[in-house]
Amino acid sequence: MNPVIAVLGRRLRLGVIGGGPGSFIGPTHRQAARLDDRYELVAGCLSSDPARSVSAGMALGLPADRSYASAQALFEAEAARADGMDAVAIMTPNHDHYPSAMAALAQGFDVICDKPMTNTLVEAEQLRQRVSETGLVFCLTHNYSGYPLVRQARAMVTEGLLGEVRMVQVEYVQGGRARPGPGRTAWKTDPERGGASLVMGDIGTHAHQLLRFISGLEVEQVAADAGPIVPGSQAHDYAGAMLRLSGGARGNFWVTQAAAGVENALRIRVSGSQGTLEWAQEHPQVLHFKPIGSPAQTLTPNGPGTLPLAARSSRVAAGHPEGFHEAFANLYSDAAEAIAARRAGQQPDPLALHFPNADDGWMGVRFVDAVIRSSAADGLWSTV
Amino acid sequence: MNPVIAVLGRRLRLGVIGGGPGSFIGPTHRQAARLDDRYELVAGCLSSDPARSVSAGMALGLPADRSYASAQALFEAEAARADGMDAVAIMTPNHDHYPSAMAALAQGFDVICDKPMTNTLVEAEQLRQRVSETGLVFCLTHNYSGYPLVRQARAMVTEGLLGEVRMVQVEYVQGGRARPGPGRTAWKTDPERGGASLVMGDIGTHAHQLLRFISGLEVEQVAADAGPIVPGSQAHDYAGAMLRLSGGARGNFWVTQAAAGVENALRIRVSGSQGTLEWAQEHPQVLHFKPIGSPAQTLTPNGPGTLPLAARSSRVAAGHPEGFHEAFANLYSDAAEAIAARRAGQQPDPLALHFPNADDGWMGVRFVDAVIRSSAADGLWSTV
Amino acid sequence: MNPVIAVLGRRLRLGVIGGGPGSFIGPTHRQAARLDDRYELVAGCLSSDPARSVSAGMALGLPADRSYASAQALFEAEAARADGMDAVAIMTPNHDHYPSAMAALAQGFDVICDKPMTNTLVEAEQLRQRVSETGLVFCLTHNYSGYPLVRQARAMVTEGLLGEVRMVQVEYVQGGRARPGPGRTAWKTDPERGGASLVMGDIGTHAHQLLRFISGLEVEQVAADAGPIVPGSQAHDYAGAMLRLSGGARGNFWVTQAAAGVENALRIRVSGSQGTLEWAQEHPQVLHFKPIGSPAQTLTPNGPGTLPLAARSSRVAAGHPEGFHEAFANLYSDAAEAIAARRAGQQPDPLALHFPNADDGWMGVRFVDAVIRSSAADGLWSTV
Amino acid sequence: MNPVIAVLGRRLRLGVIGGGPGSFIGPTHRQAARLDDRYELVAGCLSSDPARSVSAGMALGLPADRSYASAQALFEAEAARADGMDAVAIMTPNHDHYPSAMAALAQGFDVICDKPMTNTLVEAEQLRQRVSETGLVFCLTHNYSGYPLVRQARAMVTEGLLGEVRMVQVEYVQGGRARPGPGRTAWKTDPERGGASLVMGDIGTHAHQLLRFISGLEVEQVAADAGPIVPGSQAHDYAGAMLRLSGGARGNFWVTQAAAGVENALRIRVSGSQGTLEWAQEHPQVLHFKPIGSPAQTLTPNGPGTLPLAARSSRVAAGHPEGFHEAFANLYSDAAEAIAARRAGQQPDPLALHFPNADDGWMGVRFVDAVIRSSAADGLWSTV
Repeated sequence: MNPVIAVLGRRLRLGVIGGGPGSFIGPTHRQAARLDDRYELVAGCLSSDPARSVSAGMALGLPADRSYASAQALFEAEAARADGMDAVAIMTPNHDHYPSAMAALAQGFDVICDKPMTNTLVEAEQLRQRVSETGLVFCLTHNYSGYPLVRQARAMVTEGLLGEVRMVQVEYVQGGRARPGPGRTAWKTDPERGGASLVMGDIGTHAHQLLRFISGLEVEQVAADAGPIVPGSQAHDYAGAMLRLSGGARGNFWVTQAAAGVENALRIRVSGSQGTLEWAQEHPQVLHFKPIGSPAQTLTPNGPGTLPLAARSSRVAAGHPEGFHEAFANLYSDAAEAIAARRAGQQPDPLALHFPNADDGWMGVRFVDAVIRSSAADGLWSTV
Repeated sequence: MNPVIAVLGRRLRLGVIGGGPGSFIGPTHRQAARLDDRYELVAGCLSSDPARSVSAGMALGLPADRSYASAQALFEAEAARADGMDAVAIMTPNHDHYPSAMAALAQGFDVICDKPMTNTLVEAEQLRQRVSETGLVFCLTHNYSGYPLVRQARAMVTEGLLGEVRMVQVEYVQGGRARPGPGRTAWKTDPERGGASLVMGDIGTHAHQLLRFISGLEVEQVAADAGPIVPGSQAHDYAGAMLRLSGGARGNFWVTQAAAGVENALRIRVSGSQGTLEWAQEHPQVLHFKPIGSPAQTLTPNGPGTLPLAARSSRVAAGHPEGFHEAFANLYSDAAEAIAARRAGQQPDPLALHFPNADDGWMGVRFVDAVIRSSAADGLWSTV
Repeated sequence: MNPVIAVLGRRLRLGVIGGGPGSFIGPTHRQAARLDDRYELVAGCLSSDPARSVSAGMALGLPADRSYASAQALFEAEAARADGMDAVAIMTPNHDHYPSAMAALAQGFDVICDKPMTNTLVEAEQLRQRVSETGLVFCLTHNYSGYPLVRQARAMVTEGLLGEVRMVQVEYVQGGRARPGPGRTAWKTDPERGGASLVMGDIGTHAHQLLRFISGLEVEQVAADAGPIVPGSQAHDYAGAMLRLSGGARGNFWVTQAAAGVENALRIRVSGSQGTLEWAQEHPQVLHFKPIGSPAQTLTPNGPGTLPLAARSSRVAAGHPEGFHEAFANLYSDAAEAIAARRAGQQPDPLALHFPNADDGWMGVRFVDAVIRSSAADGLWSTV
Repeated sequence: MNPVIAVLGRRLRLGVIGGGPGSFIGPTHRQAARLDDRYELVAGCLSSDPARSVSAGMALGLPADRSYASAQALFEAEAARADGMDAVAIMTPNHDHYPSAMAALAQGFDVICDKPMTNTLVEAEQLRQRVSETGLVFCLTHNYSGYPLVRQARAMVTEGLLGEVRMVQVEYVQGGRARPGPGRTAWKTDPERGGASLVMGDIGTHAHQLLRFISGLEVEQVAADAGPIVPGSQAHDYAGAMLRLSGGARGNFWVTQAAAGVENALRIRVSGSQGTLEWAQEHPQVLHFKPIGSPAQTLTPNGPGTLPLAARSSRVAAGHPEGFHEAFANLYSDAAEAIAARRAGQQPDPLALHFPNADDGWMGVRFVDAVIRSSAADGLWSTV
């Protein structure tokens, strides 16, 4: 049963900002919104160039009068329509997340926003504050936490199957910036738009959020070394860190976009007193659980041992792999449940509330900030 | 660019037959239709029970007047509407594929149909003939051939990277029927509805089509042993066979639904004079290529070495796994290109025409028939 | 504690026939004999050329007077010495296994013999009979059954962890004969020396023995297709078969040496009413167990869940991989326990008696014979 | 051809210190010495208890008069024999490595010594100095560098296939100390015997040596966090570090023995400008090479692409896995070549000189010292 239609009698009306022609993340967001049929795309500002925005909107099937030339125009016009959009998804360059999200909240729209939440700590704090004040839904698309087995991992930790968590290793290794030169997306290497640490904003925040999501622990202190490793590069393309986690646990952190030939190797290992979990994004359909004193287990989505949080995050019978799009869609679909419930004055299923929110986004920006501070202080342990 | 909107200025209007509440395959088809935004679901007959059909349609967001109580009502009413559906997707029990598809073709609708195409050889021949006469598009959802790396495998064979194909092993091993008893879907074990060989109709046709799709070879003769292995079972739950393939190649075939604990292990190995390919559905994001005399390669969707047929079948940058839904969607999306082109009087991109069609469906039913004949004759080599 | 020294106060004195310069299997046998220190190599006939035999023996550290020019000379001289060899290991071309083993038995030597036991069924029957009459130890080096996790698999079946075994798939795929031409070892393609079916003698007997060893079932009937697939080849390079196993179980069998680029892919899957086991020789340090209704397990040597038969077959703490040599050595070491016990008039540990013996060798030759008969009769089901 | 017999006309005569009853590492050393038949075990001091030493020696087949009650007795008696031992293998607790090795060198014996080389930096420097002065062979058994594919990795880096190395990640994760309590080997947790940092001495030195061996880089500076994580533990059971490597490369380091359920997960990733290598000890028979812009490769021992250093380190045809024992034996066998050459006044094959030596041992102890210093200074970057 489509829970949005069940509550509202219709799909949520979604607008998008960014993600126009040539974008990778644009289609991803829109596919994620479509997969479970909880949204209808009704409006967009797909480019900062007006003509291009209209043509891109039409290519997506939007009517010409709802393909807007600016985010501000989108907000105002849609707010004025009786059938205007309910929520907006923001997939613009990083520096735009803050103003677009603040403007959307000001008009009463629920927000889905790409990561990192903001480029600066001040913005993150303000945005988080504003979300809290408005009571609107804010979903930050740390999509990797949408994988069924990442959610299974979190649920297993929550259920105590690992005992007390003692150690976490997380790494996110890519090769997209191994070759010298600016890369495909010019704004990313511009600190004004891409942020002070490219690798941390791009993937470090994913790794940090994954660690927090599964382990339930916070990074309290970090000692870091971040910078450019590829000759001629100005932008950070690697960051390593040692972590002190809440409760006395320890962590190891490594992210880079300069590992030639590696594709998208996000990997995590969480060890507790009763066992260890291992998951890797490039093989997301298996979760390795090594309980102390018993044979290692290989868990699969909807296979034996699936806990409720994971079960609701899979659309398939066991053995039918889900991937990147389904993980991304899980965030969209959970946010939709939350938005529909809010609009109907209801409480959503608590299990729906596992999408990353503004608090998570703020913690991510704090972590980036602490890594930069520590690295600048030659690895001094810095409070997050 | 959405190629359907580009050609028609709108999405295709899709109706569905079957796939109502409790169905696994229903949501799968609808998600596949939605993912790439080439279809709009406009009508359906979701149940043979009229009230249930309407309520199920409304739960999907269909208007009450387009939630029909019978397939016939759907065809007639939609044919009469100016904005009526363009195509119909059939996901009813096996015995219904033939009458529903024939009726749809009679009304001029393009057809997407679940497998096996029909339960009998006579029906398959007639349906294939009718498709050919009408010129309408017929897409049979052998979804596993929609995986990007299955298509990469086919393209590599076509390009000659394997040399001359000499041997194919294909196996499809599941555990869903390992426990005695009727299972979740009662109609399947009824030969009138599920077909003469349950395991062959359910998964044997998938394995056969995968073999043909990748290798480009036909099964010419088969020596088979099929039957029930679980105590008390009447329906076939295993089938093994030796294969003689076109051009003198040899094949090995093994399918079962009685392997306790196994999930969905479809696996293929294709060996030619220049190398061997290996692919397994439970890890669909890797294709192993072992060229003679050079190190083994692990190919990934959109990774280095991707050929055009595979490139168009992925939505992602390398390292972002796609799964079952994306493979299924590839068939829907290619069929949409073919349907849109037909309606516009254009030729589709030839690469779009790799979805299984009525000829493939007929070959599958012929194979099932030959397996049953051979097994009944104690393994006599039988012509397909 | 070295169990041979414990029983006899010394190591067993071993002689070897065959395995001289250029041989792969010769060093393998000798390393297997050395690893656990239960044998001392004291004599050999390493070549049928007398001068070459002496020089090869000296290169191994044998004294010149115990490097013999013929097997017969070896047997006679060693039988006459007070400190003569106890046992002989035969690693000559296939056709020589029978006469050498018969001669060794005649002189009272225990025998370790490479597979296949013989080239003909008559020889196999006679050799098995002679072994039985003499009471000497006969160990046939089907080395793959020496892997710790193969033994774990057998023990799990024996313990009933799989329930009733219903289905077995076994495949052995190599690429060494994918290129046309005679290959490295000329005698193998000569039917007089290599046997009537090269692929069956070389690797088909391994696959058959592995199936029997793990499942505890016998192949009762076989329907087969075997022959040469590589253009210009006369020798069998592939064999496929359907199997009827004792107790009504079914099997699938596929072996080839013509799969270009494949190295040594021996793989088995055994399914019972309670679960499925999967093991692959190229990754021998993991055994996959999929119990019905519980998460899949990955078993490792000496990891949790290890049964006694497997525990005694590993020299390591869990996580330290053992390989081909250790598996081979397990047969040698178990045979040594049996030989030492026989000489001391004791009973060996029953767990030591899992090395393949003359009965197993005879069953293997019977299976080869049945495959050839069936294939010659166009796949007629043939009794093994 | 046995290269020791070829040069000396006999095997090397080996004595052992330590590794008596109950030891895991004792049998491992002796198996490693036996596998390639370059040593003959002739003497030993297997226990510090005289009676126990004799009985243990006899259980191994040593004559009673060469089972010594002390290392000193061993050295003196064997030095006095015409047929005395050539080399000694030391596998005593860590604190004994220094005195035993110094005494052995003083008597002119070549030395094979377990790791870590010493417990203190002063000892390491002195031992290294003494080795250099004597010209004797000193082999430190960092056995993981003996794996064929580790050597392949090193050779690929040396050949320039990775371009310039930029980043190295190394982790060594075990679970043996996850449970509170003293563990199996009491001396290890005694700092006087086990060293100042248990985890660093036990496995941290392995990880460090692996990094250096493959990458060819030195760790110049380290910022570290090490300590006990298991409640009640006094001994270090985890150590994390950031590394600055020679030439400006960066490294990430993580070792622990407290990861419940993990067996022996030593893993390394080396990234250069042209590609990335990945290897994991639990699956040592594959080496993943990801060249920039080309499909990822899976290299195997003696498979296509094998370089000479790796080829001489495998005894098998491709596809026949080697494991822990063969890797360990490679060090022994290479050291034997070096020892035999020294005794014969010859130069050994340069490829034989890849076993870890006293310089490597000294670098390992320096690294341990720097980790401890940095951790004590709250992660201050410390020079190695």
